[in-house]
Amino acid sequence: MTEMDRKGLSKMGARASDLPISWLMEKSLERPSIVSLAAGFTDNASLPVAFTREVVEQVLGNNLRGQKALQYGTTRGDDRLRSLISTQINSIDHETGATPISPAEIVITHGSQQFLYLFCEMMLDEGDVVIVEDPTYFVMLGLLENRGVEVRGVPINTQGVDIGALDQLLHSLKADGKISRLKFFYAVTYFQNPSGLTTPASNKLEVLDLLEKFESSAGHRLYYLEDAAYMHLGFMGHPMPTALSFEKHRGRIVFSSTFSKPYATGLRVGYGILPDDLVNPILFIKTNHDFGTSNFLQALMVTIIETGRYDQHLTVLRQRYADKCRMLDDAMRIHFPDWATWQVPDGGLYIWVQLPDHMDTSLNGAIFQAAFEKEVLYVPGGLCFARQPGAGDQNAHHRATLRLSYGGASEDAIRLGAQRLGDALKEFVPG
Amino acid sequence: MTEMDRKGLSKMGARASDLPISWLMEKSLERPSIVSLAAGFTDNASLPVAFTREVVEQVLGNNLRGQKALQYGTTRGDDRLRSLISTQINSIDHETGATPISPAEIVITHGSQQFLYLFCEMMLDEGDVVIVEDPTYFVMLGLLENRGVEVRGVPINTQGVDIGALDQLLHSLKADGKISRLKFFYAVTYFQNPSGLTTPASNKLEVLDLLEKFESSAGHRLYYLEDAAYMHLGFMGHPMPTALSFEKHRGRIVFSSTFSKPYATGLRVGYGILPDDLVNPILFIKTNHDFGTSNFLQALMVTIIETGRYDQHLTVLRQRYADKCRMLDDAMRIHFPDWATWQVPDGGLYIWVQLPDHMDTSLNGAIFQAAFEKEVLYVPGGLCFARQPGAGDQNAHHRATLRLSYGGASEDAIRLGAQRLGDALKEFVPG
Repeated sequence: MTEMDRKGLSKMGARASDLPISWLMEKSLERPSIVSLAAGFTDNASLPVAFTREVVEQVLGNNLRGQKALQYGTTRGDDRLRSLISTQINSIDHETGATPISPAEIVITHGSQQFLYLFCEMMLDEGDVVIVEDPTYFVMLGLLENRGVEVRGVPINTQGVDIGALDQLLHSLKADGKISRLKFFYAVTYFQNPSGLTTPASNKLEVLDLLEKFESSAGHRLYYLEDAAYMHLGFMGHPMPTALSFEKHRGRIVFSSTFSKPYATGLRVGYGILPDDLVNPILFIKTNHDFGTSNFLQALMVTIIETGRYDQHLTVLRQRYADKCRMLDDAMRIHFPDWATWQVPDGGLYIWVQLPDHMDTSLNGAIFQAAFEKEVLYVPGGLCFARQPGAGDQNAHHRATLRLSYGGASEDAIRLGAQRLGDALKEFVPG
Repeated sequence: MTEMDRKGLSKMGARASDLPISWLMEKSLERPSIVSLAAGFTDNASLPVAFTREVVEQVLGNNLRGQKALQYGTTRGDDRLRSLISTQINSIDHETGATPISPAEIVITHGSQQFLYLFCEMMLDEGDVVIVEDPTYFVMLGLLENRGVEVRGVPINTQGVDIGALDQLLHSLKADGKISRLKFFYAVTYFQNPSGLTTPASNKLEVLDLLEKFESSAGHRLYYLEDAAYMHLGFMGHPMPTALSFEKHRGRIVFSSTFSKPYATGLRVGYGILPDDLVNPILFIKTNHDFGTSNFLQALMVTIIETGRYDQHLTVLRQRYADKCRMLDDAMRIHFPDWATWQVPDGGLYIWVQLPDHMDTSLNGAIFQAAFEKEVLYVPGGLCFARQPGAGDQNAHHRATLRLSYGGASEDAIRLGAQRLGDALKEFVPG
């Protein structure tokens, strides 16, 4: 190796390699004949082009208002937008009687992904421990691994997180002297990516109670990071209460959501809600990132919400995704072999499929290859699980899952994709 | 301290405290009677409201084009935008005969600040060393310090970086066994924030040659990070060649610029240009941040540039800043005591003022207090220098400087601000 080959990267830079999601996204963008049921893109046909155009007219049609939108704002984000967000959250949690959250606890970010990133930076050093759901959002897994964090998984089911398994994991972290390195538990609580599961509010409380119990051993607060990115995408409407409704735990709850998925992914506006004493440190880090999220995009979101267009669009979008979900389910019933099983979700963008345990959906496996030859992409389920130390059989079970998305694909692509994937699966014989 | 007081922050989180820039920005937003010549805001009156409105009509007026703009793009950024950027850069460097840069070397970011951040993440571990100009962009200083990086400064003047001092510093890093921790040299090369100085192209080459010489001792490449944020804001038009024009050094040059300052700070679109082998690692990190910069903002920038509006706006903006700069200079000549000296820049947003050496412009000093009482804000120059180990007298010299910005202030505010600051300064007697 010559000296010029040596890049001098940081540990993080050296760990950087292609993310599976980027690879899948580029594959599907490159080759238009491929049907991607992999990428978490949102529905194209329903994107609110007309609404956005009208709203831009309202914002830029007035010169003073336009100038304000085109100038820098503050790092924490637009006051009016933070106020509208607090109103949204408080209306979800209203019936629980919890004290409303205040705009001062809210930080606007460039999509909720940026909030997750900032929070991880604020909390995690190399060698720290984070607990996630098994399965979980695989971009978060990659982010944590890239920071040199030890990620431990706890199984989830329709009842939420397996509390017994969580308790056992916390005890074992304590026994191993690692509990002081544990920083938070991460949960995607509504129509989870990838499983489609929603966490019952009672389960959020059980997890919070358990985290509290282990704080004296940890020597610091143990946070519950609630990722509610799909909160507004329930087919039936009003979301269940958030973790923030458990007022006595407010100091250990960090909440994240976004307008990208429910409105338009091309406008990147997300947010986080944090305990008071975490707001300034995260703003400091965000200032170093970008001085605040595009003020123009924030001004648009304010007007989109204030004029009722956000809610109107949600009504359309929920129906749209409910239809697309049913369409995918119907096509899977027709084309998939009967040894593939799945549950139809109540919202979100994903159907999670379970194959018999010995089958392997990995990127380098025969099933993915067969699907790729038939020009259809999925997300291998194995990517969505924390790499448990020495859990061979469990990993085999993980590798027999896959995630399908009906979000970005057109109606035709959904039907064609399900057919192609069904045909590919039928080439394999369960044992 | 009770257990609940313990936040469990990372090292970075624990180092996080209020940035001076945030404090100054919030002060000036909170109290409208204060004239801020501190913040690096851009001119409000000339913000391209009408242009942006027209361009949104073009992008969203067509449903297919609108849908594309409102959907996710790729992490590296819009192909057409990267192609337009390569054309801009290649036209600047055209006369040098260097091989054109290609769109594949370009990554689009949420303002150029995000690019600087991503590059630092990719390159720097705690304890690494970075060399900056003295003075330098103080947000970059804060970012580096927050990562636990050792920052060393080298003086600059109208000839660029003091090459003798840089050579001496490199030798001393080598003697101290620290050269292997040195990662890059950071320069703001056009109408520098804060000094207003522009680096002659020949000086860029001298620095590059020197960095190359020390690479065998370092054991890896030593990069030249050129921050060209103000490149397009020269009062006279066409910028000098960039460092990229020195083709034999291409593998050690990282270049960063933005459309935020020259077009609209409310639209956050910046970019970086990197050696081939650094593109994938930085894209990996950016995917973890946000999956790519708002596709809508990128679609707007494409149309703004393609329709010639970007260049038209620049012509207006350059004249506008030239006028405001002259206005501030004129007012300073009238109101400032004759022991305050400054050079009028040829572009950018800043005038850098030197007071007699024993005077102290610090945030907690008497001059800042006097200015604050008269309701005018400036940036204390001391914030813009690397904290040199044991350089007492030199620091005193640094503390006798201040940065004024004519960017965001109105004409009236410029005149009033200069008068107030002149009055405040006159309360002090040089020794």
